[in-house]
Amino acid sequence: MIRTISHPIRVVALGGGTGLPVVLRGFKSLIFSQDTDDRDRLVAIVAVSDDGGSSGRLRDELGMIPPGDIRNCLVALSHNEPLMARLFQARYRSGGALDGHAAGNLILAALAQEEGNILAAIRLASEVLNIHGRVLPASLESTRLVARMSDGREVAGESRIAATGGDIDRIRINPARPAATPGAVRLIEKADIVVLGPGSLYTSILPNLLVPEIAAALDRTAAFRVLVLNAMTEPGETGAFSAADHVRALRAHTVPGMIDAVMIARDTLPPLSAARYRDEGACRVSPEDLEIDGMVPIVARRDLLEFTPKVRHDPMLTAGGILATYAEWLETRDVKRGDAPRAAGGRR
Amino acid sequence: MIRTISHPIRVVALGGGTGLPVVLRGFKSLIFSQDTDDRDRLVAIVAVSDDGGSSGRLRDELGMIPPGDIRNCLVALSHNEPLMARLFQARYRSGGALDGHAAGNLILAALAQEEGNILAAIRLASEVLNIHGRVLPASLESTRLVARMSDGREVAGESRIAATGGDIDRIRINPARPAATPGAVRLIEKADIVVLGPGSLYTSILPNLLVPEIAAALDRTAAFRVLVLNAMTEPGETGAFSAADHVRALRAHTVPGMIDAVMIARDTLPPLSAARYRDEGACRVSPEDLEIDGMVPIVARRDLLEFTPKVRHDPMLTAGGILATYAEWLETRDVKRGDAPRAAGGRR
Repeated sequence: MIRTISHPIRVVALGGGTGLPVVLRGFKSLIFSQDTDDRDRLVAIVAVSDDGGSSGRLRDELGMIPPGDIRNCLVALSHNEPLMARLFQARYRSGGALDGHAAGNLILAALAQEEGNILAAIRLASEVLNIHGRVLPASLESTRLVARMSDGREVAGESRIAATGGDIDRIRINPARPAATPGAVRLIEKADIVVLGPGSLYTSILPNLLVPEIAAALDRTAAFRVLVLNAMTEPGETGAFSAADHVRALRAHTVPGMIDAVMIARDTLPPLSAARYRDEGACRVSPEDLEIDGMVPIVARRDLLEFTPKVRHDPMLTAGGILATYAEWLETRDVKRGDAPRAAGGRR
Repeated sequence: MIRTISHPIRVVALGGGTGLPVVLRGFKSLIFSQDTDDRDRLVAIVAVSDDGGSSGRLRDELGMIPPGDIRNCLVALSHNEPLMARLFQARYRSGGALDGHAAGNLILAALAQEEGNILAAIRLASEVLNIHGRVLPASLESTRLVARMSDGREVAGESRIAATGGDIDRIRINPARPAATPGAVRLIEKADIVVLGPGSLYTSILPNLLVPEIAAALDRTAAFRVLVLNAMTEPGETGAFSAADHVRALRAHTVPGMIDAVMIARDTLPPLSAARYRDEGACRVSPEDLEIDGMVPIVARRDLLEFTPKVRHDPMLTAGGILATYAEWLETRDVKRGDAPRAAGGRR
């Protein structure tokens, strides 16, 4: 069946860290190669619980939300990414007060002070720097992660959690119920595709979902919701998690039925990458885990990776894979529901 | 006589502070309204002796040349100046390490570290931010001003000199003979018009001329060289200087015959501006000073100012006035020299 897509696809991607920019980079090429300037067609919603490094220092010193992940998304969405990366990713190296700060973080911090708030700062940076799409923090309140570890200890602060070494059993954020950034809920509701990940489950994906209005919008939206799993587990966070363990953790922190599909990388790791991750105590999230097929309506196993030898999702394979899985889901819905694949105003 | 200008005019403006950006802004409109992308047509050469504020702290902490005046020139030359000003002129306000820094200074500092030198940083910023023309520091060595005051004291450091309160008798820079920035000499030699000022005589104009290769190039160039005098004196620097005193000070620090024309604002100050400056101890540099007519070949008295109520040179009146005076000078040369108004390779 050949389908004519009658409206331009809108994508919202939630996450943080290095995974979210990969998704943005891939969709930027696919969406904005059509010469559209509709920023709502590609939206990044970014976790705001980072408290380490340059971001953490700016957060502490200026009382702003951590700018680092926002910066990386702006670079990923920029029209001339290599040039913008040189500007935004430049870092100070000196013993002084600026040491280690990324220039883009300082730009966002200064603009936030000058314009009065981070949203105006991001808008201005997006305009000056010719950004496709839109970047929104999940919340305008900085939140701090609090983890209950599998041995029962409570650890507060993302960077301290990462340094603790044990496995995370449960996380929460403090303050517990921050408001979502204005506009974020509407964008999720209007989206065709909502992407969670790839990225750190506890420190990039879940912090977004712990913002109650974001979780409610995800639950309510008619969009296709796909979780892109990391290819490798992260020691001290997802230890020896299987694919099914990832989905179980997601459910434990939200509600069942939050996602329509899971995408798992099925690529074979080259020996160099495999050895490197083994040394770090990271495991492969095996695509052969069959338990997950009973937990989520669609499980897509695809070649998604590039090896540098770091294992990273390839932007085009990932965005393309999401679109292919979306098409598969649309077919499923047509079969089940007849000719109304997108129920306006919610899925239920 | 109607003249056809057979080649595009090239302007080099030397100075610093708030005066140099005014000249750049005016010429940017006149030159780049012709849709040229030849950056050599408008060149700012910027003093590097600033040691106060955000620039001074970056200079001390990172060992870089002070970026503030460079930043202001980049903003003045940017295609979309209001937008760029919001990005570059944003300042941090907090008690911490970033307090008072201008975002543009930090951008230049980060780029200088990342690209390895300030020239590459300026080039990159110029590209990213869509800058017309070119900005060069006078030297790649930070210099420190040393003033001998009229009471005989020696004071080192631009910001300390400004705070001292007495009148300056003579200044020098330390190190005494820094090399000019590569390219600066050639650009001065190739220029049609070289503009000095408006701006602080001792702290913006003379620091450029104390770079020996810059002074030699100015002395040698076939370009029209015009000094645009400040409308008001500066307490602690030019005290009660007349127009002729300004030229005498210039000569005392360089060689006679360094300039072809002086431009003096003849505007009448509105009462509010006059009162304001009187309270600060600043005097009008009177356009009625006739002594100067015997010192410089051309003295142009023109309406040049805007009042906010601060007294500032108006960009278009200033650039236009310089062009009109240049035309007058060309006529003079034709009369004296026949049909070879521009001797290639130097004036003597």
